[in-house]
Amino acid sequence: MDISLSTFSQVIEILGTMAFAISGVFAAMEKKLDVFGITIIAFVTAIGGGTVRDVLIGATPVAWMKDVNILLIILGTAVITMLFRKKIVNLHKTLLLSDALGLGLFTIIGIKKGMAIDLSPGICITLGTITGCFGGVIRDILLNRIPALFHADLYATPCIVGGITYVLLINYISEEWAQAIAIIIVSAVRIIAYRKNWRLPTL
Amino acid sequence: MDISLSTFSQVIEILGTMAFAISGVFAAMEKKLDVFGITIIAFVTAIGGGTVRDVLIGATPVAWMKDVNILLIILGTAVITMLFRKKIVNLHKTLLLSDALGLGLFTIIGIKKGMAIDLSPGICITLGTITGCFGGVIRDILLNRIPALFHADLYATPCIVGGITYVLLINYISEEWAQAIAIIIVSAVRIIAYRKNWRLPTL
Amino acid sequence: MDISLSTFSQVIEILGTMAFAISGVFAAMEKKLDVFGITIIAFVTAIGGGTVRDVLIGATPVAWMKDVNILLIILGTAVITMLFRKKIVNLHKTLLLSDALGLGLFTIIGIKKGMAIDLSPGICITLGTITGCFGGVIRDILLNRIPALFHADLYATPCIVGGITYVLLINYISEEWAQAIAIIIVSAVRIIAYRKNWRLPTL
Repeated sequence: MDISLSTFSQVIEILGTMAFAISGVFAAMEKKLDVFGITIIAFVTAIGGGTVRDVLIGATPVAWMKDVNILLIILGTAVITMLFRKKIVNLHKTLLLSDALGLGLFTIIGIKKGMAIDLSPGICITLGTITGCFGGVIRDILLNRIPALFHADLYATPCIVGGITYVLLINYISEEWAQAIAIIIVSAVRIIAYRKNWRLPTL
Repeated sequence: MDISLSTFSQVIEILGTMAFAISGVFAAMEKKLDVFGITIIAFVTAIGGGTVRDVLIGATPVAWMKDVNILLIILGTAVITMLFRKKIVNLHKTLLLSDALGLGLFTIIGIKKGMAIDLSPGICITLGTITGCFGGVIRDILLNRIPALFHADLYATPCIVGGITYVLLINYISEEWAQAIAIIIVSAVRIIAYRKNWRLPTL
Repeated sequence: MDISLSTFSQVIEILGTMAFAISGVFAAMEKKLDVFGITIIAFVTAIGGGTVRDVLIGATPVAWMKDVNILLIILGTAVITMLFRKKIVNLHKTLLLSDALGLGLFTIIGIKKGMAIDLSPGICITLGTITGCFGGVIRDILLNRIPALFHADLYATPCIVGGITYVLLINYISEEWAQAIAIIIVSAVRIIAYRKNWRLPTL
């Protein structure tokens, strides 16, 4: 059980990181960035949320500095996406699923990091949401546009819903099962919201 | 004396936090953000300056992660402001005063945090000014506009004037009195600058 | 040898800091910022890269808080540049050279900081590039434009080339010589790229 769930998490982490990096590449190409700029946006989208989290809680050097593998995965993803951009655009469904699963996993990773230093549950959920969502916020700031998170996509709400679920469940079931269920909830809410084009109200 | 001044500080902190959050809500509504985006901008405006300060000096986890009350005050303020936005706009004078008092208090809190780790007086004043002003800077970055702090409002100057006063006064009078006087100076300079529409020169 | 190279580094550090600050002043004036805004942009351009580096690795309080001299140099540079802006514009060649030498030195300083905490070579080069380039990125974010680093200037590539050289050379020659050679390579690549108007491809 342990091994399979941990392997499951690793697969999701890689798929999620790749999906985040790919979304960064396409956003950067739209703005006519050069290949270096595109690569940086891929990195920032993939690791920005975790970086903000680590900086806010003082977990430095931040995570990506200690894990060269993740950087190589992002770099490889960015290069391959630039080379085969027309084909990769067609992987729309795979990307949506990978992105949604990654969003779920990153949220839970952030929540756990907060719990490890005894932050209160509400702050842990905030930290999880930051981990999942703030890569996209930094991407949009660097691309000089208002973060989509604040007006377009329903992207934080799934993290908050899944995060609350996780925080409640770990009192009753094993951490592994709570994590699996929370990731599924985040992903499901995200995908349904995307398909149905759900939006939060403006004023 | 101690108790009343400390209570006085707490009241100002709450009023100032609310005024900062309200200014965030209105700025975000102008840009057609959704209710989640508006809430995030309210948070960022209220706690962004202190967060930048804590990250720069390594006081992590940053302050708001250790004080759920402040977060609840901001959340409540954001919700109430969204619901009663037409009424709250009319509280213009109250908001201006609360904002100015908050600016003063946050500046002094920042200066004290710098002094506590033996930074030089000039750096402490810088840290105080960052605490007071950088929530608005992050708000404007997220709303995709040049920070008002850099071209429109006379907002940092009151912090610097009040900060210098504080740093000088604590050599001669009690810390409590120095703080009270400095807050009044920051607030007075800010309000007069606002009323008279004072601007710094451009080139 | 030691003394002269160290003096050489100090001279470059001052010249580079001044050149970065001056570029900040001119970029800010274009956007009609007031004198306070211009000064902040000068600071951010000069110390932003090192600040991001220090925050990411947890070397807090960040470097500029511990070195008032650098701040005074930036402040003096900003004031003089604002006063004599028409004359300073004509110092184009001197500024280009100072900026390029500074870029090289800051890159090496960043790499050394990474090595001091045992980060892997690729991360150290990344940290060096961040040190050299991210002041300009923050400057551009604050001025509400897409960072030039990502689409216009060939500015990071020289850092990466020089950084790789440095990391390879220190296995064979003295640290002082490796540093001198790497700085010359960064500067030379930067100046040639600028003169020839080299660009990275877009897609």
